[in-house]
Amino acid sequence: MTTTIIVVSMPAPPQRLFASDNASGIHPDYLGAIAQANVSHELAYGDDRFTPLAVRGFSQLADCDVDVLFTFGGTGSNILALAILLDRAESVLCTEWSHIAVDETGAPERILGVKLQTVVSPDGKLRPEQIESAAHALGSIHHAQPGVVSISQPTELGTLYTVAEIEAICQTAHQYGMRVHVDGARIANAVAAMGATRDVFRAMTFAAGIDALSFGGTKNAMLNAEAVLIAPQYRGRHAQYLHKQVTQLPSKMRFTSAQYVRALSDDLWISTATAANSSAQILFEKTKRFESLRIDKPAVNSLFPIILDPAKTKLQEWSFFWDWNIDQNQVRWMTSWDTSPTDIDAFVAGVAAVLG
Amino acid sequence: MTTTIIVVSMPAPPQRLFASDNASGIHPDYLGAIAQANVSHELAYGDDRFTPLAVRGFSQLADCDVDVLFTFGGTGSNILALAILLDRAESVLCTEWSHIAVDETGAPERILGVKLQTVVSPDGKLRPEQIESAAHALGSIHHAQPGVVSISQPTELGTLYTVAEIEAICQTAHQYGMRVHVDGARIANAVAAMGATRDVFRAMTFAAGIDALSFGGTKNAMLNAEAVLIAPQYRGRHAQYLHKQVTQLPSKMRFTSAQYVRALSDDLWISTATAANSSAQILFEKTKRFESLRIDKPAVNSLFPIILDPAKTKLQEWSFFWDWNIDQNQVRWMTSWDTSPTDIDAFVAGVAAVLG
Amino acid sequence: MTTTIIVVSMPAPPQRLFASDNASGIHPDYLGAIAQANVSHELAYGDDRFTPLAVRGFSQLADCDVDVLFTFGGTGSNILALAILLDRAESVLCTEWSHIAVDETGAPERILGVKLQTVVSPDGKLRPEQIESAAHALGSIHHAQPGVVSISQPTELGTLYTVAEIEAICQTAHQYGMRVHVDGARIANAVAAMGATRDVFRAMTFAAGIDALSFGGTKNAMLNAEAVLIAPQYRGRHAQYLHKQVTQLPSKMRFTSAQYVRALSDDLWISTATAANSSAQILFEKTKRFESLRIDKPAVNSLFPIILDPAKTKLQEWSFFWDWNIDQNQVRWMTSWDTSPTDIDAFVAGVAAVLG
Amino acid sequence: MTTTIIVVSMPAPPQRLFASDNASGIHPDYLGAIAQANVSHELAYGDDRFTPLAVRGFSQLADCDVDVLFTFGGTGSNILALAILLDRAESVLCTEWSHIAVDETGAPERILGVKLQTVVSPDGKLRPEQIESAAHALGSIHHAQPGVVSISQPTELGTLYTVAEIEAICQTAHQYGMRVHVDGARIANAVAAMGATRDVFRAMTFAAGIDALSFGGTKNAMLNAEAVLIAPQYRGRHAQYLHKQVTQLPSKMRFTSAQYVRALSDDLWISTATAANSSAQILFEKTKRFESLRIDKPAVNSLFPIILDPAKTKLQEWSFFWDWNIDQNQVRWMTSWDTSPTDIDAFVAGVAAVLG
Repeated sequence: MTTTIIVVSMPAPPQRLFASDNASGIHPDYLGAIAQANVSHELAYGDDRFTPLAVRGFSQLADCDVDVLFTFGGTGSNILALAILLDRAESVLCTEWSHIAVDETGAPERILGVKLQTVVSPDGKLRPEQIESAAHALGSIHHAQPGVVSISQPTELGTLYTVAEIEAICQTAHQYGMRVHVDGARIANAVAAMGATRDVFRAMTFAAGIDALSFGGTKNAMLNAEAVLIAPQYRGRHAQYLHKQVTQLPSKMRFTSAQYVRALSDDLWISTATAANSSAQILFEKTKRFESLRIDKPAVNSLFPIILDPAKTKLQEWSFFWDWNIDQNQVRWMTSWDTSPTDIDAFVAGVAAVLG
Repeated sequence: MTTTIIVVSMPAPPQRLFASDNASGIHPDYLGAIAQANVSHELAYGDDRFTPLAVRGFSQLADCDVDVLFTFGGTGSNILALAILLDRAESVLCTEWSHIAVDETGAPERILGVKLQTVVSPDGKLRPEQIESAAHALGSIHHAQPGVVSISQPTELGTLYTVAEIEAICQTAHQYGMRVHVDGARIANAVAAMGATRDVFRAMTFAAGIDALSFGGTKNAMLNAEAVLIAPQYRGRHAQYLHKQVTQLPSKMRFTSAQYVRALSDDLWISTATAANSSAQILFEKTKRFESLRIDKPAVNSLFPIILDPAKTKLQEWSFFWDWNIDQNQVRWMTSWDTSPTDIDAFVAGVAAVLG
Repeated sequence: MTTTIIVVSMPAPPQRLFASDNASGIHPDYLGAIAQANVSHELAYGDDRFTPLAVRGFSQLADCDVDVLFTFGGTGSNILALAILLDRAESVLCTEWSHIAVDETGAPERILGVKLQTVVSPDGKLRPEQIESAAHALGSIHHAQPGVVSISQPTELGTLYTVAEIEAICQTAHQYGMRVHVDGARIANAVAAMGATRDVFRAMTFAAGIDALSFGGTKNAMLNAEAVLIAPQYRGRHAQYLHKQVTQLPSKMRFTSAQYVRALSDDLWISTATAANSSAQILFEKTKRFESLRIDKPAVNSLFPIILDPAKTKLQEWSFFWDWNIDQNQVRWMTSWDTSPTDIDAFVAGVAAVLG
Repeated sequence: MTTTIIVVSMPAPPQRLFASDNASGIHPDYLGAIAQANVSHELAYGDDRFTPLAVRGFSQLADCDVDVLFTFGGTGSNILALAILLDRAESVLCTEWSHIAVDETGAPERILGVKLQTVVSPDGKLRPEQIESAAHALGSIHHAQPGVVSISQPTELGTLYTVAEIEAICQTAHQYGMRVHVDGARIANAVAAMGATRDVFRAMTFAAGIDALSFGGTKNAMLNAEAVLIAPQYRGRHAQYLHKQVTQLPSKMRFTSAQYVRALSDDLWISTATAANSSAQILFEKTKRFESLRIDKPAVNSLFPIILDPAKTKLQEWSFFWDWNIDQNQVRWMTSWDTSPTDIDAFVAGVAAVLG
């Protein structure tokens, strides 16, 4: 076996990472909101001045009387949303790429005791006909009953459902008595990509018929601030008790809700996502010329180029990013709300040094 | 039935609440630590510059190579600690007052699938002979096997175990193959009350033989920052996977660990707890003179006075605090790290207006 | 320490045991019913000729359209009944003596993820005021919500609820939105003791307002044959899927249901329980004369005498029976449907040899 | 749409069904064993005369000191075996056809809180390279850790692993620290097909390196009698407590173990399976001539022919059998230990009437 060694002189790596938006910082306005909420005492668990404001803000955003539950993390949000939507002996239908099935260390199975039924999906999107197919199990006592369809917008492969596609999923699911959950850990990036308006948010979520949304904040410039939005018809399902039972009830809730008050005041949550998406576009434009790189135009803030070794490893050692589909030499590059032009240029310089 | 109505003119309520230390703010130094950790990107899930420092800080504090897992909340910490310590088909022994049994909405049963065996305890403390008694179930296939003893220091009734008592509990538990978990949501207040030194911390925890500690930060001036410390002999129990599986792995972990770096740098965690304890002493000194109030000298930052209605309700409406033992008209008053002399005087003025 | 050794010449032990009705055999008529159901093939999982007959038999017995689920064992029956009755984030209220809390190795916690809240009960019976007290937790997000009251008839201490007591429990529970489950592992013995008629069964169960009953067969002369009866208003709770999900769906169900067809045809289930109860009465009459034995008149087929050591151990070694309350030297003697006068005389002879 | 209606005069259907071996009766020798165990009292839960004999019988059969746990049903056996083998935060690797993943209504997820990772398998068999691929998740905190490989012998598609294939699976799994469970609901049919000797049983199970076996009895002429065999190195994992905790501990265990004493005395368990397999061969020989039927030679007692509608439905209405792969018009025919030549001829006559 011969090992090829690349001996190249690498430029300085970018100051900010292209590994994940989880690596990014907190927007100063959110730190400001936390400081503002810190002036005096407030009762815990949501009985403070900020939480009702944030809840009202979400109702306006969703244009319906959603139940809002502020949580600590994304996995916790998904667990809580599913705990509310699921009925006895049901299963969750999702794709083979879904975060709940792949990246949560079995939390749904452990905490919810629920079967996840994964369907094949080359692009990370679930299709109505896969719901139809799963519906064959309805009525058979030997099978967990498909009860919730969980999709991610954007998907874990950086693709987007159109509004019509989400509507079709909701319609098919509801026809069989199933409910629809959206893992929106990066919902802001989807909204930013599809029009960057509140109308777009509504169209792809509650107006489309979804029943619950994990609304992500942490990857979008916030400090450990996630929220679960539940459609009004699920009142009476003990959501508030489940909130505590799944360990996702922040005692000092005001420091989460105050961030959302800020985010919703002028839609900073859309602006930051727009910035991240734009950086991804620029990164794409500046790297598509490399012949040995197979890269597609990004839909949101993630790119999934194919890079062969030893270039791939060389680059990862220089400025870390994750393998995505290891068998296909596919990796993930991700931009953040605070990625700067300088960061992009520095990263492209490294790519050029290895591939150019 | 006659209803007595108190018509008294009440003074202005205190600016800061006596409802719970969960109602208090964040110490400016912790906000400063968060800001400092925000200057650039850091990899998520602990692969940052701050987390190893905080882990080392805890090892020095505990004087042994503890495994440290940073978490979002107190319930989550307890769940994670127990998930690591428990073996198959085991139960947890705790008092009827324990937070895990009473105040976590059944989270341990749901997430761990574990039986909590509660023992009677008028003062919130568990006794070695109760472990002996529970040990009778060992070896019988019809009973969950007592595997972990979980105690709280201080207890939910504001009492403290002496170091000798914790040693005795550990010795008895270990003799039967059981492990010992300490719910230290307010461990700092215990340390502050019993000498306010690192030696005291060591003596009441790992030197006494405990196996796991939920180390609280949120009630002690921090922002959603809790930690679980596990004795070195439990390496190899998949703690790192359980961390994510129970939804308690912060992605932007640096903002938690940076607070602990600050806390441990000069033991700010002990100073803030000392302040809270002192305020409780002052409040006691200033209210013990009211004849219709039955109040005991506090051990930490909580007082459990008995106040008859209608005075009790009147006061709660004026400046909220919790009922504790409703059958006995017992309530809880709690001071915080930021309770000021002015707050105490304002509160005492209200008590005087109603009871004086 | 001096050890007293009893050197007595013991008579031959009884052929049948007084350890438990679980030690008894199967009534020949049930073996006959199994043989009759064995003449040809029948579809599995209840699609056979016998199951609908048994279901109809139970509806006639209960005088309402109960849902009937045949199961393998008593623990499984309780789990299944509770799985159907429980809603999200709820707890089960039961006594400290209840089989579900004490004798099922934590199965409810593991399989249902549910908190069992045990209440003190010297006689094994739960009282309406304990439901009232538990109802204080309703509405507080920090507490599991009391959702099901589970009582045992007869209790694990051999006592009986009157019909009026069960009615009062149901009324109080329902007033708070809670449901009532009866662990009737020995319900036949209760029916036999309180009148031995179908009307008595109805009065103490569905006419009294209970929502679910674990109807025991195995301890009452049957071969691994238990049943869960659910009140009609709980249709639509996916009972049939839960049946399989909790591993309690017999594939060759006809061999269970055929036994129940036989039991209900002429109420053999009451006759066998009457026989067991009568034997307990005779045993009491023949042993009450021993001065060193503290024994109460039995309500059903169990006696709970107090016998001091070394007599106790001597007797247990001669013909085994269980300790019940080891601190009080209390043991349990239990008669079965097939206990004969000869067995009783042989057992009494042994008692006489040791105590007489 | 035109609907084709077949108007054929059908012969009398077979007396015994080809729907499932779950529809078959109990061998008279097992009823005899039950009757023999019924002569007197025996202590419950295995402290009887028969259970130690059956355990010893299994140790001789396995040629090692296996731990034997008698259970009620097949799903329960699988749950119990996995509960013993699994460690914290682990997942189970199995095929998309596996009974645990498809036919147990989510029992593993609910009771074990475990993720099942299903792999694609056109023939129902899992391959060592799929274990290698799953092993990539080892060490990543975001993924449940593959801990147990569960295979079925024969598979749910009626195929058989060779001894070498099972050895390779065990070797690969063990190399990564994983354990191997075999769902042997029809292990007797596999043994019968591969040589019908005890040596064959050993070679494909414990000699091959497997760690646990669900040993089926119910489908092979027994009355609700299943067993779990665990390799000796898993002593100390609280198997006996898990046995009760997962509701699979029969109180009157002697009636299960006595059947196994009979089965193992002269390997009746192999003879009955051999009979079932032979009937399947005969059925194949007598139906392969029908041109419109696509049918493969069976490996055990199941055939998976492809029959187009309306013939398929016509036949199912006449003598019921299950759809297997509804998209491909594939059904399952299954023979049993008591299928007679007359039954086969009657069934073939029906097939001929519709297809001939």
